[in-house]
Amino acid sequence: MSKGLRAQQDMEKERETLQAWKERVGQELDRVVAFWMEHSHDQEHGGFFTCLGRDGQVYDDLKYVWLQGRQVWMYCRLYRTFERFRHAQLLDAAKAGGEFLLRYARVAPPGKKCAFVLTRDGRPVKVQRTIFSECFYTMAMNELWRATGEVQYQTEAVEMMDQIVHWVQEDASGLGRPQLQGAPAAEPMAVPMMLLNLVEQLGEADEELESKYAELGDWCAQRILQHVQRDGQAVLENVSEDGKELSGCLGRQQNPGHALEAGWFLLRHCIRKGDPELRAHVVDKFLLLPFRSGWDPDHGGLFYFQDADDFCPTQFRDPEYGEWFGYLSREGKVALSIKGGPFKGCFHVPRCLAMCEEMLGALLSRPAPAPAPAPACRGAE
Amino acid sequence: MSKGLRAQQDMEKERETLQAWKERVGQELDRVVAFWMEHSHDQEHGGFFTCLGRDGQVYDDLKYVWLQGRQVWMYCRLYRTFERFRHAQLLDAAKAGGEFLLRYARVAPPGKKCAFVLTRDGRPVKVQRTIFSECFYTMAMNELWRATGEVQYQTEAVEMMDQIVHWVQEDASGLGRPQLQGAPAAEPMAVPMMLLNLVEQLGEADEELESKYAELGDWCAQRILQHVQRDGQAVLENVSEDGKELSGCLGRQQNPGHALEAGWFLLRHCIRKGDPELRAHVVDKFLLLPFRSGWDPDHGGLFYFQDADDFCPTQFRDPEYGEWFGYLSREGKVALSIKGGPFKGCFHVPRCLAMCEEMLGALLSRPAPAPAPAPACRGAE
Repeated sequence: MSKGLRAQQDMEKERETLQAWKERVGQELDRVVAFWMEHSHDQEHGGFFTCLGRDGQVYDDLKYVWLQGRQVWMYCRLYRTFERFRHAQLLDAAKAGGEFLLRYARVAPPGKKCAFVLTRDGRPVKVQRTIFSECFYTMAMNELWRATGEVQYQTEAVEMMDQIVHWVQEDASGLGRPQLQGAPAAEPMAVPMMLLNLVEQLGEADEELESKYAELGDWCAQRILQHVQRDGQAVLENVSEDGKELSGCLGRQQNPGHALEAGWFLLRHCIRKGDPELRAHVVDKFLLLPFRSGWDPDHGGLFYFQDADDFCPTQFRDPEYGEWFGYLSREGKVALSIKGGPFKGCFHVPRCLAMCEEMLGALLSRPAPAPAPAPACRGAE
Repeated sequence: MSKGLRAQQDMEKERETLQAWKERVGQELDRVVAFWMEHSHDQEHGGFFTCLGRDGQVYDDLKYVWLQGRQVWMYCRLYRTFERFRHAQLLDAAKAGGEFLLRYARVAPPGKKCAFVLTRDGRPVKVQRTIFSECFYTMAMNELWRATGEVQYQTEAVEMMDQIVHWVQEDASGLGRPQLQGAPAAEPMAVPMMLLNLVEQLGEADEELESKYAELGDWCAQRILQHVQRDGQAVLENVSEDGKELSGCLGRQQNPGHALEAGWFLLRHCIRKGDPELRAHVVDKFLLLPFRSGWDPDHGGLFYFQDADDFCPTQFRDPEYGEWFGYLSREGKVALSIKGGPFKGCFHVPRCLAMCEEMLGALLSRPAPAPAPAPACRGAE
């Protein structure tokens, strides 16, 4: 068989594999979205139930603002970028969620601070002294503008973004955190990660905002990179504001899945900047390193939390893990049967599936290269 | 063998069993206290390290105020009530811990609000908007007064107690919790439990304070009893202030170990009141019921959290479990190898062992009843 023929056959086989995966991922995405559409819509007040049992039963009707914003974003993104999701039911639910947020998310309008969790009818239950409710509000509003073309949503998004940047870079006092003498000036990696994500969201196909937030994007990337510590051998969740390791558990805390997510945001940043050197560094430190050091050698899978000196981490709250079942024990057994809860909703799994489907589609639509010419005088192999 | 002789032999056998257990519990208590004395004392700043690894290595030097207060209390209680612990090293360490609390626990003296966690040298890191730091501060100060006779400690205890009662019964605004429209007026069982515990602590052998807090003790008992819900079939962690079940996960939350602890405090209350009817109710609802409904039929042991309708609980932070290893998986495997951390210190295990030793001692020192007279005309059995 000639090299050219073999290359051609290899390519066809790869294409078949990609096609099979694309179909499988597409079906999973359909089923995940169908689950949330069937069980999560609050027809009476707008917005979404996210505390859903295995079969979709609502086990609590509280509305967590992060998850409201994420579901609005997810629905709009699907509506806007996948033809088969371009139907009114999805957009109407997203709009009802967006209107619920517009009306109730802010604790004391016109102040911009948002609640962390609301009652079913929108009364505030708890307020977190962080920026994340506001960030997911911004993501929702920007994507709602893109899906509907209604300018009021974009105005909301940009004004909230300005407020968030002010809290992060200028003055955090509006967040309500007490200034305590012993509290370390720590930077959680989540803050520049989240902001970098917003820079990409707001700047997509929008030259004016892309240029407005270009400097902020560089600042975020530089801040995230500061979390690579110990001669490049560890990504630490919390460092000092000038990029030094902090003492104690807080300083040694690692979250391999979070490092990988940061790597993804940084790679998108590298694409925008056209910076192959940074790209290689990010692949090494935020993708390969967390996979190597964060993998459970006994049972497989990534650890939720690790201590850089191998002490026991003291965290007991699990972050999001994946769809179908969200929370597994270290041995891989289903720990909780819930489909959604205060931290897991219609976001991580469909977002991942949608991205996979897009990427597989992109791989499949690459133009096939012309078959390589058969090498001269090498005979059949 | 005559019935009288058999009863005599049974009693001797029981006595031997009790004696063996008393020795075993006493040895365990010695070892647990030795562990904390060897590894936890901060000779430089006073107070205690509580984040200790399996071998006693300090893996974080933060000082959690609950655990500082509990260790002061434990040391003083041991010093005061066990002859073999009446040595200066224990009392000196307790005093150094008490002085550390006096100096640094309050965030903004003369205000009484205490921090939740301090740096090693006493600067506040975090403040919780609850009463518990202040409660353990009160326990420590009262017991320190009992062990040393120094009146300043008792003044501190009583003044702090007055502040706590004011927060709970009159006006909670000093705790700093925002008043949010959607937040349910929920009462966590921990609040009246903790207060009832303090009523017992402060009233011990002190007629004046016993009488001062008698009404408060009744109020606490009545409030705890309100947590028995669903026709007496469930103890719920959170109920409304007028004793109704709350909606959602918050309302359905159960913690069988916590119910048992409440039962213990209530039984002590019944002893003080001389109320056998209440005693029978407490045994039924707070001891037998949580053991029946909170026991894991597959692996044994009590669940940390349960949902009264068998949904998945959404809590992920484990409460204290026991000494040696504090945190086990549902299957009973050691989940965390740490001996102490932000929630487990020198308190629950030695407190339990000390109580067991005392109770075994009390059982052993009961006067032996006169042997029963041999029944007439029944012959040998």
